[in-house]
Amino acid sequence: MIYTDNIIALATPSGVGAIAVIRISGKDAITLCQSFFKSVSGKQIVNQKSHTIHLGHIVDKDRVIDEVLVSIFKDPHSYTGENVVEMSCHGSIYIQQEIIQLFLRNGCRIANPGEFTLRAFLNGKLDLSQAEAVADLISSDSEASHQVAMQQMRGGFSNEIKILRDELLNFASLIELELDFAEEDVEFANRNQFRDLVSRIINVLKSLIDSFAIGNVIKNGIPVAIVGEPNVGKSTLLNVLLNEEKAIVSEIAGTTRDAIEDELIIGGISFRFIDTAGIRDTKDVVETIGIKKTFEKIESSQVVMFLFDASEIHSSIEEINNIQKKFPEKSLIIVANKVDKLTSKDKDILNHELSVILSKNEKSQIQLLSAKNNIGIDELKEKLLQFVNTGALKNNDTIVTNSRHYDALLKALNEIQKVQQGMNSGLSGDLLAIDIRQALYHFGEITGEITTDDLLGNIFANFCIGK
Amino acid sequence: MIYTDNIIALATPSGVGAIAVIRISGKDAITLCQSFFKSVSGKQIVNQKSHTIHLGHIVDKDRVIDEVLVSIFKDPHSYTGENVVEMSCHGSIYIQQEIIQLFLRNGCRIANPGEFTLRAFLNGKLDLSQAEAVADLISSDSEASHQVAMQQMRGGFSNEIKILRDELLNFASLIELELDFAEEDVEFANRNQFRDLVSRIINVLKSLIDSFAIGNVIKNGIPVAIVGEPNVGKSTLLNVLLNEEKAIVSEIAGTTRDAIEDELIIGGISFRFIDTAGIRDTKDVVETIGIKKTFEKIESSQVVMFLFDASEIHSSIEEINNIQKKFPEKSLIIVANKVDKLTSKDKDILNHELSVILSKNEKSQIQLLSAKNNIGIDELKEKLLQFVNTGALKNNDTIVTNSRHYDALLKALNEIQKVQQGMNSGLSGDLLAIDIRQALYHFGEITGEITTDDLLGNIFANFCIGK
Repeated sequence: MIYTDNIIALATPSGVGAIAVIRISGKDAITLCQSFFKSVSGKQIVNQKSHTIHLGHIVDKDRVIDEVLVSIFKDPHSYTGENVVEMSCHGSIYIQQEIIQLFLRNGCRIANPGEFTLRAFLNGKLDLSQAEAVADLISSDSEASHQVAMQQMRGGFSNEIKILRDELLNFASLIELELDFAEEDVEFANRNQFRDLVSRIINVLKSLIDSFAIGNVIKNGIPVAIVGEPNVGKSTLLNVLLNEEKAIVSEIAGTTRDAIEDELIIGGISFRFIDTAGIRDTKDVVETIGIKKTFEKIESSQVVMFLFDASEIHSSIEEINNIQKKFPEKSLIIVANKVDKLTSKDKDILNHELSVILSKNEKSQIQLLSAKNNIGIDELKEKLLQFVNTGALKNNDTIVTNSRHYDALLKALNEIQKVQQGMNSGLSGDLLAIDIRQALYHFGEITGEITTDDLLGNIFANFCIGK
Repeated sequence: MIYTDNIIALATPSGVGAIAVIRISGKDAITLCQSFFKSVSGKQIVNQKSHTIHLGHIVDKDRVIDEVLVSIFKDPHSYTGENVVEMSCHGSIYIQQEIIQLFLRNGCRIANPGEFTLRAFLNGKLDLSQAEAVADLISSDSEASHQVAMQQMRGGFSNEIKILRDELLNFASLIELELDFAEEDVEFANRNQFRDLVSRIINVLKSLIDSFAIGNVIKNGIPVAIVGEPNVGKSTLLNVLLNEEKAIVSEIAGTTRDAIEDELIIGGISFRFIDTAGIRDTKDVVETIGIKKTFEKIESSQVVMFLFDASEIHSSIEEINNIQKKFPEKSLIIVANKVDKLTSKDKDILNHELSVILSKNEKSQIQLLSAKNNIGIDELKEKLLQFVNTGALKNNDTIVTNSRHYDALLKALNEIQKVQQGMNSGLSGDLLAIDIRQALYHFGEITGEITTDDLLGNIFANFCIGK
């Protein structure tokens, strides 16, 4: 699959801005641009060095479309590995359209989503998992998701896979070599070293597979179900949290989320708060669909935050017990709001009742709060963050966030475990070799050494156009 | 007013895209960027040539924020005339914010709207009318408005003013020189040549001032009031027009327009269609506010398009006459829609009635139409375009679109006419010189040789940030 045509796309977000960048990649990118570019210096860009910038005008016949800066990148020293031109024009939609249409009439076609990155992959500038990280990087909206994508794009994950793959490949070759000398009964591959390698690979694979749970959380946010009556201060709490963190939240307002969900970034970790009103009626009409939905939401969340009015502890006990009983495995934060209204005697009663509740479930935590007076907010945030094992992140360990990689890792693990069992049961070299090849195949799927057109199509279809 | 600090802003539209461009301008732009940029080649960007591009990472302490391309432009060879760095990063809002905030913490401040262009003006890279054209260029959404802005940005208008100003300045100097030799009664300035110059200037000024009407139309669109009953096919017609031109229209859907207005670009000229339902009731309740508003809209429009059902010509005659009588100066297009329904006898009657109407007002035109069957659409577009004197545009004549320039031109004309009168009435050189200086002052206002901080503030406040 080698591309010979020239693709063009707007690389910056659509809309009006100071400038816009239009990108052309392909064999003729620079010569095509030359035909419509009159540089102020009078120099021809085809004769200029890679990585230089030239001021001039895009001219269609006699009509000057815009004054632009043209950046040229020569094969292979470009993002795609092909000749690339980036035209930085004035940020008018009209001008963007005129320039793109000019080149569409003259030897370019509109790039498909992700096609620039696809070409970078096909030309060996990035491996597949790095290419996938580019899309993650663009859509990252929290420190944690950004860091994971960045690490993956810089090859962290690929390197880990590559080292395992190379070692395994080495052994596979030795075993296959033995097969050529089958009559002589030689053993090129040291079986003890190989046994060590296999168990080391199994350990790494298992830890990568385990990291997917946290990787998924980092990428998509930790789902937190908020349970509680409308009047207990749920929205006040959310507003307090939102106000403090709004700089980032307001920026991502455009991302499509269910209306009943609110995304919040606390300490660099994204949390998805899911509103679950109506649980109060559970005692009477447990079977109603609404309540069923609420429980489904609690089921799919990782943390349940139960808010209640601290002055009404007695009427809330039954509910708390109910949730604890129904979801013994859930991390539950019991939040007693409006503590500012309590007398010290009230507080004693509250603390007593809560300690009883706490003793029934060790995965529960308690937070006294006054959302209105900003009491207990920082502590609540701390408790939320405790549910995330940020240790992994801080150590720069590799984290798997992509379900395609997760799937390939599971399959590779499966094959490697077969190899291990085979060795233990004294399986012959030729049969071992087949399982090893199969494991290598799944490693190759991750980095893109083994691909199909369908797979590439699926991956790059999720990119934005222009990347 | 010389700036020594460093400004930063996002130069591309906000939102998620393949890439985003962050721009820093100021004395320390390159050295500041160097502190947080690790180039892949290991080279220091401070040692690199202007107009070169460098791949590397933006790193805050140990944390890699993004892989970026850094373009450097060295004073004075940049847009602002200062040292400029443009960082092309991945188009994630999170990354954009992180990079901008990193530099805000380290020696940069956020640029004010238009501040990059303001600096370009203050550093003599652009004159004021060219700087203003940059904002027009970015907001241009039709071929005509784009062309006018482009011509102005490339100095077309400024050059015209500059030539007049230089000639006038030359004469002013000679006249002032005469004053130094007042006792000797010499005449350095040839009075006949001067008289010629003054009348030439007056002609040019008048034609520039006249061009403002068309310039305004080009910039803001030609207002067309559509008059007619709901059932005569008004919306069908608009849809047919919109469908044919929707490529550009859909792009500008974001621009705020009154709900009752629709913008349409025909042959590169923007038309604003203004819906004016309800005129039918005029005969009965002329005084109602609704009808008054409709007439106000007709008053403010340049073209009135009257649509009626061709099979009901008789009931429409009175209305047509009414509008012709009330707005004798308006360009009226009488559109007989649904002609497909007519028998040939009906058509004869229609043509007869219309010719009678036409004879009463030479500014009226007639168009037979079937919006549904796409009959007469092209001819209608032609008639609309006839109302625009596109000749001026095609000849690349200078067109004034800016009301500030219009105002300065009017004032300059006033002063020059005083000079002319003064010469005719034998005014003394010293008094002539005062009027000439005053005219020169107004010329200077246009190109920015004479400015006040207030004026600059007003002009650049209308820019987007990052330009």
